[in-house]
Amino acid sequence: MIIVMSSKATDEDVQRLVDALESRGYGHHISRGVERTLIGAIGTPDGEKRSVSQQLMRLANVERVVPILRPYKLVSREYQEETSIVYIGDAPFGRGHFGVIAGPCAVESEQQTLEAARAVKAAGATCLRGGAFKPRSSPYAFQGLGEEALKILAAARDETGLPIVTEARDTSHIELVAEYADAIQIGARNMQNYDLLLNVGRTGKPVVLKRGLSATVEEWLQAAEYIASEGNLNVILCERGIRTFETITRFTLDLAGMAAAKRETHLPIIVDPSHSTGHHSLVAPMTLAGMAAGADGVVIEVHPHPDRALCDSAQQLTTRNFARLMDRVRKLASALDVQLGESAHKE
Amino acid sequence: MIIVMSSKATDEDVQRLVDALESRGYGHHISRGVERTLIGAIGTPDGEKRSVSQQLMRLANVERVVPILRPYKLVSREYQEETSIVYIGDAPFGRGHFGVIAGPCAVESEQQTLEAARAVKAAGATCLRGGAFKPRSSPYAFQGLGEEALKILAAARDETGLPIVTEARDTSHIELVAEYADAIQIGARNMQNYDLLLNVGRTGKPVVLKRGLSATVEEWLQAAEYIASEGNLNVILCERGIRTFETITRFTLDLAGMAAAKRETHLPIIVDPSHSTGHHSLVAPMTLAGMAAGADGVVIEVHPHPDRALCDSAQQLTTRNFARLMDRVRKLASALDVQLGESAHKE
Amino acid sequence: MIIVMSSKATDEDVQRLVDALESRGYGHHISRGVERTLIGAIGTPDGEKRSVSQQLMRLANVERVVPILRPYKLVSREYQEETSIVYIGDAPFGRGHFGVIAGPCAVESEQQTLEAARAVKAAGATCLRGGAFKPRSSPYAFQGLGEEALKILAAARDETGLPIVTEARDTSHIELVAEYADAIQIGARNMQNYDLLLNVGRTGKPVVLKRGLSATVEEWLQAAEYIASEGNLNVILCERGIRTFETITRFTLDLAGMAAAKRETHLPIIVDPSHSTGHHSLVAPMTLAGMAAGADGVVIEVHPHPDRALCDSAQQLTTRNFARLMDRVRKLASALDVQLGESAHKE
Amino acid sequence: MIIVMSSKATDEDVQRLVDALESRGYGHHISRGVERTLIGAIGTPDGEKRSVSQQLMRLANVERVVPILRPYKLVSREYQEETSIVYIGDAPFGRGHFGVIAGPCAVESEQQTLEAARAVKAAGATCLRGGAFKPRSSPYAFQGLGEEALKILAAARDETGLPIVTEARDTSHIELVAEYADAIQIGARNMQNYDLLLNVGRTGKPVVLKRGLSATVEEWLQAAEYIASEGNLNVILCERGIRTFETITRFTLDLAGMAAAKRETHLPIIVDPSHSTGHHSLVAPMTLAGMAAGADGVVIEVHPHPDRALCDSAQQLTTRNFARLMDRVRKLASALDVQLGESAHKE
Repeated sequence: MIIVMSSKATDEDVQRLVDALESRGYGHHISRGVERTLIGAIGTPDGEKRSVSQQLMRLANVERVVPILRPYKLVSREYQEETSIVYIGDAPFGRGHFGVIAGPCAVESEQQTLEAARAVKAAGATCLRGGAFKPRSSPYAFQGLGEEALKILAAARDETGLPIVTEARDTSHIELVAEYADAIQIGARNMQNYDLLLNVGRTGKPVVLKRGLSATVEEWLQAAEYIASEGNLNVILCERGIRTFETITRFTLDLAGMAAAKRETHLPIIVDPSHSTGHHSLVAPMTLAGMAAGADGVVIEVHPHPDRALCDSAQQLTTRNFARLMDRVRKLASALDVQLGESAHKE
Repeated sequence: MIIVMSSKATDEDVQRLVDALESRGYGHHISRGVERTLIGAIGTPDGEKRSVSQQLMRLANVERVVPILRPYKLVSREYQEETSIVYIGDAPFGRGHFGVIAGPCAVESEQQTLEAARAVKAAGATCLRGGAFKPRSSPYAFQGLGEEALKILAAARDETGLPIVTEARDTSHIELVAEYADAIQIGARNMQNYDLLLNVGRTGKPVVLKRGLSATVEEWLQAAEYIASEGNLNVILCERGIRTFETITRFTLDLAGMAAAKRETHLPIIVDPSHSTGHHSLVAPMTLAGMAAGADGVVIEVHPHPDRALCDSAQQLTTRNFARLMDRVRKLASALDVQLGESAHKE
Repeated sequence: MIIVMSSKATDEDVQRLVDALESRGYGHHISRGVERTLIGAIGTPDGEKRSVSQQLMRLANVERVVPILRPYKLVSREYQEETSIVYIGDAPFGRGHFGVIAGPCAVESEQQTLEAARAVKAAGATCLRGGAFKPRSSPYAFQGLGEEALKILAAARDETGLPIVTEARDTSHIELVAEYADAIQIGARNMQNYDLLLNVGRTGKPVVLKRGLSATVEEWLQAAEYIASEGNLNVILCERGIRTFETITRFTLDLAGMAAAKRETHLPIIVDPSHSTGHHSLVAPMTLAGMAAGADGVVIEVHPHPDRALCDSAQQLTTRNFARLMDRVRKLASALDVQLGESAHKE
Repeated sequence: MIIVMSSKATDEDVQRLVDALESRGYGHHISRGVERTLIGAIGTPDGEKRSVSQQLMRLANVERVVPILRPYKLVSREYQEETSIVYIGDAPFGRGHFGVIAGPCAVESEQQTLEAARAVKAAGATCLRGGAFKPRSSPYAFQGLGEEALKILAAARDETGLPIVTEARDTSHIELVAEYADAIQIGARNMQNYDLLLNVGRTGKPVVLKRGLSATVEEWLQAAEYIASEGNLNVILCERGIRTFETITRFTLDLAGMAAAKRETHLPIIVDPSHSTGHHSLVAPMTLAGMAAGADGVVIEVHPHPDRALCDSAQQLTTRNFARLMDRVRKLASALDVQLGESAHKE
């Protein structure tokens, strides 16, 4: 880090700072300019840099402390330059492989889920999604069927062969969800639920980590680092819209943030056009836009009868519209030289 | 709710909507204007209005569905008009009582915590705070001392008589935290961790519910409703800054949002000038501003040696500056006709 | 509009509201529910609805006033259902025509501009851009060459045949800019500079209206309505990123907002991947993403020597990278069934 | 500035950067760390630093360029340490003087304005405000009475002795407004209308510069620097709320941002509780909060009959409520040791 001292800093102020650095095991490097004195702190990366930088800011005439290194390691491209391929079951995501996770917002019944599963499989999806534990803003709203939903998803996997992705909302669900699911989703509102992150990390299962609605890309990668720090690098990041002042869409899908994140991390990143926009008519343009922006996959909500859906009815595609969208996805994949639904065995 | 149909809606479209309302148990009321047809849905408040409104939006030529009722009940002023007094130990918050929760960001050692506790007690604080389980954005940062910290806090309570407030970060901590603490804090990043909310609700303990960094006032009150729905109305809301584009402060303290929230809810609301600004020099002005805006209390980070603090060093006050601030708080309380640290027994 | 009265509204309160509506020439329609009384105001669209709605909010026990009609007319799809084609010179934008405006951020010299113009023409751009009057956040930064720049742009048009687009920053520039340019650009910081909007409206020239950095889609369309209200419907909207908490990109390109806006307005909308991201490496993915999301064109900054550019060096493409991008644009246009650079005469 | 080079930077990359610095007249200072090489650029503050820093970012393996100096000078506390007092007429703002600007949103008639002026004078306001040129989001809304309004304001000044503040919306209005007004207001939507800033700077008149709704504190101070660069340091900054995701208030009043800005600039800063909240019931708490946070004044909308106001009816106080608020303002001023409406002659 670099410490910027104000124009009023005396020699004593500088010395006090140098002492503070030395007592914490840092070397230093002083550069006196006309208007500012800069001190570079050298060495000792010990994971507590943020604390130290805040401590240094307390010293007299310290104007600013500028961090130089990124606050994450294992998930960065410095650690691994090439984009990772992460598999959910045998469905690949990343390094030219575009995955399509589709299915209902919530598992409501066996019939509804099987109907959705068959349709998305037929249309070309590579994974099935469905909520068993639903985070809802009102305590009086439908909260999901829990374990029953997990069993229904497993039955759908048995029939269609699609690997399944579902959310764990609390540490107490993880064991159960891990037993059934091929990948565990962490929802946007839980992106900084650190106990949950560590615990899904420990399962070793693939994790789909949604970006928090007010998380910076840096914080998102730090959340992934939590999972990675438990030895689990099977993480797929999912951009699902950030909260902004604009309300014509539910959230603001940050495709440029996604593209910028891909420069920083080797993990694959997918896009959620359903939750981010909140409206079915925007799912197709945002799916295609996500592909063109370089996403490694997409997660799309599909319901056999959206007008009777128990949650997020407005954003779910009919199975027919999903099939139409997949035709356009295939056409675009070819123009973009991306492999769609390519089996892992072909690697 | 009111359903707005577009200018292109045919009689059949209107009839289809009316059928959809009837099949869900709603009465209706049609108002045909020159440019739009409006249909009012009457009756049947069943907690699933949001699902229904989304389902209706799927119908042809439905332009918009406007909700009329608020999505929370027990915490609203319609349910209870007068502001509640909530007690942490014997320290009152609300209805003219201004509470001051002070103490270190994290419990680091017995000595540090006792020193802080004695100082904030002497200066006039009414509760002691201190983190045992710290949510940190990096997995490599100090995460808190856990149960050891809780024991230190209890010792500080024994010595000073100050009731203690500390955070539960995960459902697995609640039982332990509830055993030691006088009030359980839910952090901003957990405001929509619904399992955590329900479980702290069940303890019956007072809860300090921080506003999520990207939560609207409405969502904040819905989160409080989760706790209330378990029969626990001992909830103190805490405004701690929202995330905006401005970075000169860590977050943007939303005092007007706090004042607006007080019109909606009977629950007391306090303000956190430490986390919201991220800088000790802004704690005093924001404490006084919060009081003047009508807050029912404040939570301030105080550390005997902020320059050695293991977390959030930059925002913690020295015990000396806290004492000075309390002098100004007392002067302002008198000008605002607010009672500071008034004992519960005087009610 | 609909007026929602609180549960405490008395018959007198309702009568007072009805009187207020009648005195302003509105009819009304009362719907009494169990928890709320709703009053629909009928008729009299007189352009002052917002004032009236605010006046009504002053009355006792009025909880909310819900507007029903959109606050813009001429630019809406209700006024004209089919997407407009707007021509800059003979370059079409909209209804399947994708236009490419390219050129340097600022006109710095004749040589630099001609070099850029030749290169973008060769690569397939349909219009040339270049700043003559630059809005800069620092008063000490390069502000553009003014009329000299306009002359250079005209010379570049003479040589290449490309129509030219340049910004008018103040009402005092309009006449001059209109004399030289084929389309006048209104910058993001001026989107709500209403005098400027009315005055460019009066020129009858095509206008490229950038979205304000904190403007909602609704406000953007209202700004376009200002231009349209002067009889000028030759407006191309330009999404150039909104300000959010995320700083990894300069602004957040709101492609979903663009797609949502296209449902509301018949005006063509283009995308600016250069200013929105602030980084050249993100220009290609965001150009392709914008196309896939349904944009009617794109504006890209290209400089023969970006490392010597006097403004926004970081975001400008080299002419070589622009040519490569255009190859991908052509490939994508074909997959998306969009016509690139199709001459107006073929209509 | 400091240039951070990535871990992959070769000696050639570093040399190329050093050459680039030298060719632009900078000295340099290289600091090689284990993971990064840092180069400090020394000297030559020439106002074009932002261009240079962007140019350097184009070089191979340059990871980041960190600016060290602030992008404004004359308005900073480095230029002048003590807070300025700015006078509007003989009403002082700053250095312990709290000014109160009050009056209607728009001048609607002579009677309305005189009635408001007498009432605010009687209640203790120190300046009169009133809009002559109104920026309105809809082209069909009331745009102000123009010069007629200026004459009415002058008549109100003649009668009450209150200096008058009114907005110039376009460069073409400045001369006229300057002829009548004691201070010229620049509206939030014009904060980055640089031609307007330079031109009001040249008048030498006091300027009330509203913060743009999406402007950072840094950009706000840069806008003030535009005015100051013309030799006019009679600038009063006005915090009037920023745009965030929260909609319960119209904007989010950023009092902590105001307090942080006061550390950076010597210019006085006032607060606008009317526009920022959009609701009359929030004007009193936010006025008091602004005072307690250290504002140097306030601007409050007051209308003799708000329920008939032609603009912003919802946010205007009645004269009676304004008088009540002023009683509380006086009480608070005394507790905060602030001088209210102290005449300039007492300096």
